[in-house]
This record gives sequence, C-alpha cells and structure tokens, in this order.
Amino acid sequence: MKRKLTLKSIAKELGVSISTVSKALRDSPEISEETREKIKAFAKLYNYKPNNIALSLKNRKTNTIGVIIPQIVHHFFTTVIYGIEQEARENNYNVIICLSNNAFDKEVLNMELLANGSTDGFILSVSKETMMKEDYHHLNEVIDQGMPVVMFDRVVEGIQCDRVLIDDKAGAKKGVTHMIRSGCRKIGIITSEDYVSVGRLRTEGYLDALDDFGIKADDKLILKLDNIDDLSDKSKKRIEDFITNNDLDGVFTVNELFAVHASRVINALGKKIPDDISLVCFTDGQLSEHAVPSLTAVSQHGEEMGRKAASILINKLESPEDEEEEYSTTYIDTSLVERESTKEVTRR
Amino acid sequence: MKRKLTLKSIAKELGVSISTVSKALRDSPEISEETREKIKAFAKLYNYKPNNIALSLKNRKTNTIGVIIPQIVHHFFTTVIYGIEQEARENNYNVIICLSNNAFDKEVLNMELLANGSTDGFILSVSKETMMKEDYHHLNEVIDQGMPVVMFDRVVEGIQCDRVLIDDKAGAKKGVTHMIRSGCRKIGIITSEDYVSVGRLRTEGYLDALDDFGIKADDKLILKLDNIDDLSDKSKKRIEDFITNNDLDGVFTVNELFAVHASRVINALGKKIPDDISLVCFTDGQLSEHAVPSLTAVSQHGEEMGRKAASILINKLESPEDEEEEYSTTYIDTSLVERESTKEVTRR
Repeated sequence: MKRKLTLKSIAKELGVSISTVSKALRDSPEISEETREKIKAFAKLYNYKPNNIALSLKNRKTNTIGVIIPQIVHHFFTTVIYGIEQEARENNYNVIICLSNNAFDKEVLNMELLANGSTDGFILSVSKETMMKEDYHHLNEVIDQGMPVVMFDRVVEGIQCDRVLIDDKAGAKKGVTHMIRSGCRKIGIITSEDYVSVGRLRTEGYLDALDDFGIKADDKLILKLDNIDDLSDKSKKRIEDFITNNDLDGVFTVNELFAVHASRVINALGKKIPDDISLVCFTDGQLSEHAVPSLTAVSQHGEEMGRKAASILINKLESPEDEEEEYSTTYIDTSLVERESTKEVTRR
Repeated sequence: MKRKLTLKSIAKELGVSISTVSKALRDSPEISEETREKIKAFAKLYNYKPNNIALSLKNRKTNTIGVIIPQIVHHFFTTVIYGIEQEARENNYNVIICLSNNAFDKEVLNMELLANGSTDGFILSVSKETMMKEDYHHLNEVIDQGMPVVMFDRVVEGIQCDRVLIDDKAGAKKGVTHMIRSGCRKIGIITSEDYVSVGRLRTEGYLDALDDFGIKADDKLILKLDNIDDLSDKSKKRIEDFITNNDLDGVFTVNELFAVHASRVINALGKKIPDDISLVCFTDGQLSEHAVPSLTAVSQHGEEMGRKAASILINKLESPEDEEEEYSTTYIDTSLVERESTKEVTRR
C-alpha cells in the first residue's frame, strides 16, 4: 500500500523535528528562511498538502468531537471522557479519542490526524512535555482553521480557547477545613513539588484552611514528593518517615495513592483511623471508596467536567459564525465525600 | 453549517432502525424489498454515499488503527489500550479510540465513522448489546471492504477475523489450585450467572481445580451474582450471607470488586485473612495491589493483550494483499500475583 506523506515522514526524511516541519509549512518566522524553503520544496515535490481534506470540507460538518488526553490509565481522565460521551450523545455528536502519552510530538501528530476532516473541534488536556516546551503552535493552527478548542484540567494561557478547570485550591481547603472542624490540630500534607500546578494549588488550599483557623503552618508538616502520578519505593519510604516522625492527628494527601499508603503506614504504627489520625485525600475514585477504612475524599466530578467541556464546544460549533468570539474559564466545584477515615464534625 | 447525512439521520427520518438502514443500503435480503427501495431512494435523493471516502481512498494508507471498546471506566480496557498504543507507536501507527458504551447502535455508528477513510483496520471488543442481538453486519461490512478486524476479550464466532483472548478457565484454575496447595479445602466462588462468558469460564476453572485434587464440588459454595461490572447493595448482601453462612477456608472471586467486599465481610466477622480464610481474585488492578491486606490476584496482562492484538493487525496490514487469508485465535496466558491474602505453599 502507498504511504501517505505526513509531517512525521517529512521530518524524518529531512532530519528535523515535526514541530519545525509544521512551522515551516506555515511560514513561521521562528524557522530560518533556508530551512523553510527546503521543507516547502520537499513537501511540494511529494505533493503534501497540509490539512487539504480539512480545507476542502470546510463547510461540511462531521458532527464529531476530537478528544486528546495525556494518558488513559488514570481514573480521572476516564470519568471526564465518560462525561464528554454523555453530553455528545445527547446532542448527536460522535467522539474520537487520541492519547498523547504525555509526549509533544504525539500530541502534534494527533491534532494533525484529527484536524484532517475527522472532527469539528477539540477537547484537550495538554501533555506534560508540551507544557515544558511551551510550544503551542499546533493549537493555534487548528484554531486559525476555525476549529474551536476547549482545554480542561491541564490548561495553558495565551491560547484563544475556552477552559474548564477543577477548583483545586478550594477543594483542598474544603478537605482540610473538615479535618480541623472535626478536632484535628496538627495536620500534615503529602503533596508534590510546586512546579506541578495541581500540587501547588492544593498546598495553597491547605495553608488557607490552617490560616482561617489561626493554626500556624509548619514546613516540617509539608511533604513534597517528586512524582504525583506514581508511588515509587522512594516515595513510600518518605511517607513512612513523615508519618512516623511527626506526631500528626490528621493527614491530607493530594491523591489517592498517597492516602492508601499513608493508611497502611498508620495501621502498621498501631494507630487507629480516624480516632488517632484522620485521613482525607484529593480525588474520589475506586481506591477511596473500597479501602478499609474507606477514605473521606475531595471529589473532582470528572464527569461533570467532561459534560461542561463538551457542552461549551458544541455551543461554539452550533452558534452563528459571525458572533463575536468570547472565551470563558469555568471552574468545576469539588465536594467532600465523607467516609470512615474522618471523625464527625460536632456542630455547635 | 450543513449537516452531513448519516445512517442515523436517515433512520430517524424514516422511522426505522440504524441497522435496517445499513442493511438496506447493502441490499440485505433480511430487509423487505419495499423497505430497501424506500431507503435507497431516500439516500439517493440526499446524495448519501455509504463510505464514499473509504472507496475513493482505497489505495491510500492512513497508518491509523481504529479501536472500539465498550467502556473506558474499567482498568482492564485502559491497560489493553496502553498496550495497543505502545505497539502502534513502535510501528509508526496512530491509534483512534471510540466507545460503544455497550450499545449496538453506537458501535455501528463508530465503525461507520472510522471506516470513512480514517483508519486502515480495527481492534474491537464487542458491546454487550451486540452480543445479545447477534447482529454483526457492521463487522462483516468493513471486512468486505478490505479492512482487517482483530477482536479481543469479548469476541464472537462466525466472523472472518483474528481473535485475542484471555485464558479465563486456566486463570481461575491457577488461582484456586494455589489456595488448595496452601491448605484450603472448603473454597467458595463468587462468580456471575453462566450467560456471562467470563463468569462461566472462570467457574469451570474453579471446578476443574477442585476435581484435580479430588475435592467434591458443592453448589452451596457457588454464588452467582447478576452483574459482574458493578457491586449493588443486593450483591453486597448476598456476599455477606454467603460468607457468613458457609464455613469457608478460602474464597475465589471473578473480579476485584467482589473480593474487596468479601475482604470487608471477613474482617467484620472477626476472622483473619489468610489465617482463617484465604482470598484470591481474578484481575490484578489497583484495588488488589493497594487493599489491606493486599490481594493475591490472577493477572490478565491487558497490556500484553493490546500489544498482541495490534501486532496481529499491523502484520495483516503490511502483508501483500494476495496472501491467502488465515485467521488465528491467540490465548494470552494469565499469571498469579501472590500477595498477603493467601498462605505460602509448602513445597514437599
């Protein structure tokens, strides 16, 4: 079978990055004129037309939403997709999903793939690598072509698109406030380094809650781990030391995995949850629900987030084209799911 | 924007099912001649061409694999997708995912969507409703168009495609055998009704293991629940009664959720795992790994399954077209992950 010439094959052939090819074909001044000419000549020779199908079908509606997410082995993303699917179905839209595996090149290729006549618009959570590179030309490209984009969860600034976010700070504050109200006074937090935005925001919420009740924050009670997506042996050890060496009466964690390990450590120390130590985590998933004791959790409402993102996108797609463009940022509220790992709050 | 005429819109307009429209356009004798003529006339009037892009692009390779799965909020499917992604990436293929939400119509629409020039072939796990209807015309259609299909996990017979399956029976046998070897003699199983094939096969594996060791099976020790994907209050109650009323020394469950609840019940009865009762479940996911005690589990190797399915499909896509078609069925081996919920096997 004859292979289609893609951004990727051009990049490989000429020994440059996919991003360079993509930018050169768009005549981006970021690329030297010499390189631009070379790439354009090559593309012309092999009859490569960027997004040619998309252009020819400009007035044809596909009634399909393209979703690009960093990874799928993650309960939160699956609930968001579930919400997108529900909202799309009710509005007679199809949904196509691609994964970036947190890689920039894969994200660029996925957008090229789906923008080629398969979808009307995008819902996207950007990959870690894209955030690090701060290279968003692929997003600007589809937006320039008239395909609206809605970003969720991991969003970036400076792009003409709508955004749907979890209110991470308020969520963490809610969880920590609940522990304080139920009697905890020495609460530790297991979080991430500050460069991970969800970790930073949740830490801020924790500090806010302490401040509201006049409890002085103590750096020793803040454990910042490198990786929020995984639980390495090193992280396990740091959690063990943190709980063993601080005489805590409450632990707040920014994800379920940290909480599950904290619960195990508390158990091994012969302490009781919640009588000796209360435990609250961010994210309400299967682990929180089925742990013994079950865990009080801040629910992110992934399904609602997905529904909202889809609803914003569909509204854009169905509104008259001459309407003035406005971009919104929507915060999805979190809620606290009380379970066995916290004491009851005595109302006064 | 102008809407594209789809199978769905024709069906809605004429008040017939999507399946009827699809079959009528293929001149299927299952549909009355009158209905066929009416539908074809309507489609012609509105210039609907089934899979017209696919036909015009017949010789163009998209280097994209279409994946259709019943649901995504399910750890097993996400691991399979992860495996498909890995294998595809290594072979320079893209992956596009659509969900059927276990609905027949959605599955048909997804296949129509992706067959329209977006993909070279399919990897698919059929929806529950499709299995109940036993209507596979949409699969036969894409296969007739020269797009290979690989089915995994939930597969059906009588379709010209390759199949990748978990060896459910052998997996269950492995788990139960391990309990017997570690000293259990009165082992109960929490499974599904027989019409769910994974439940039936895993029950067979359980019975096989007992038989191998000359242990007589007892119907009272086999609990068959309606729903394998969920844990309803009714199911919880039945698990409680089952464990309370039978003096078991081992429990085997066909999924993680049943095991997690069984663990909770055993705990509440004041019995110790594994000293009083051993516990083994099918599926090695986050719940088994992080439960306290952690659960010995039969691992399904979803990632390997995904890799295998993708590798078979890519081989088909890259083999010369005149090669004689042969269809294979591959069984992915399971393995036992030993954790805290079972006793050690004393080797003699």
